Amino acid sequence: MERHFHEQLQKLREKLTVMSRSVEESIEKSIQSVMLSDAALAEEVFSMDDAINRMEMDIDDDCLKLLALQQPMAADLRFIMAAMKINNDLERMGDHSVNIAGYSKSLSGPRSVRLMENIPKMARIVRDMVSESLAAFVEGDAGRARAVCLKDDEVDRLDDALFKDILNLPHPDSESVSRSLAMVLISKNLERIADLSTNIAEEVIFIVQARTIKHHSELSLIEDRRAR
Amino acid sequence: MERHFHEQLQKLREKLTVMSRSVEESIEKSIQSVMLSDAALAEEVFSMDDAINRMEMDIDDDCLKLLALQQPMAADLRFIMAAMKINNDLERMGDHSVNIAGYSKSLSGPRSVRLMENIPKMARIVRDMVSESLAAFVEGDAGRARAVCLKDDEVDRLDDALFKDILNLPHPDSESVSRSLAMVLISKNLERIADLSTNIAEEVIFIVQARTIKHHSELSLIEDRRAR
Repeated sequence: MERHFHEQLQKLREKLTVMSRSVEESIEKSIQSVMLSDAALAEEVFSMDDAINRMEMDIDDDCLKLLALQQPMAADLRFIMAAMKINNDLERMGDHSVNIAGYSKSLSGPRSVRLMENIPKMARIVRDMVSESLAAFVEGDAGRARAVCLKDDEVDRLDDALFKDILNLPHPDSESVSRSLAMVLISKNLERIADLSTNIAEEVIFIVQARTIKHHSELSLIEDRRAR
Repeated sequence: MERHFHEQLQKLREKLTVMSRSVEESIEKSIQSVMLSDAALAEEVFSMDDAINRMEMDIDDDCLKLLALQQPMAADLRFIMAAMKINNDLERMGDHSVNIAGYSKSLSGPRSVRLMENIPKMARIVRDMVSESLAAFVEGDAGRARAVCLKDDEVDRLDDALFKDILNLPHPDSESVSRSLAMVLISKNLERIADLSTNIAEEVIFIVQARTIKHHSELSLIEDRRAR
């Protein structure tokens, strides 16, 4: 029973990793669809989202079964609750990719080179945050999780810079306003994905610390007993 | 023990209702801060968010304790998992209010009357969706939840209309572009709150249906037995 349970937890980690890979791919494709104004790529993002939604339901179901059948305690319970939250965060990231791909239509026509450099740059950092936050969870690595939180500031800076670039566009006309709006919204969607990755990273830090604090309090309990 | 457990579930419902009221108030204040360019109101939204974050942690903790100590089965387990998700959704709505209040600075100066009508109109519908989705959860009322889902389409329509209004602004200059960007982002934040309310409503429909399906399958089991 115990061994079976730990196999199931391992299975849960693997499923979340697969889901995370799909989300990373959908982010990549959504940005490509925007950069190349490629409607076929945008369509791929939309159908990937269906798959990601199905993964979410499947993982949610696994968590529910683990809770109902195994009635885990303490650390395992906290782990499954974190898995549920992370599952939800990943699914929302997929929604943001869909939003981004949706703007591929608004972005045909000429674009500022500087803007077109900053969006893929942001996207690269964001994809890395997704992958690293999930790895931090699977390995229970608080250091790796903290590195993700630091990267969030970088994304915020890029998002602000893009906003200012757009405000400083010379001679805005209705065409360029439309493109600028799409740019800002793409940037905001990337920034939300970064926030969701940061949520995951904070969850990991919380779990690891709870374990550490528990460990310490057990140690001090032992010391208390020794002192008696 | 059983009675104690149901009292705790009732307490959970009450805490989520209190949290929802705070979120509704923070949405209201954030929109007011934008409409009146009122920095003091924006500050109130920021400090309300701290309170909302603390509520989230408290409710999360309650859910964890209920799961660990009571080891609930089936319907109760599903209810607690839904409460956890809703708790998370409400906390994120608070974040969106903070985003909106943050734009109060960008929005001083002249504004289009039509735009300034549409934002409060959207906000009213969105606040109503928050309150109704929570009421649907507390009462387990799928009909009320379905009404929330319908309102989401209305919000999407208003968001699209606002986007088009901005694209059709005559003679955009860098000032009006800046205001337009803020408007679009406020509208998108309201739309995200509407989406989160729809998540809650869908969760309620899912719970009620699961109960109904289970009830039906138990009925058909009885009928199967009778048929034998």
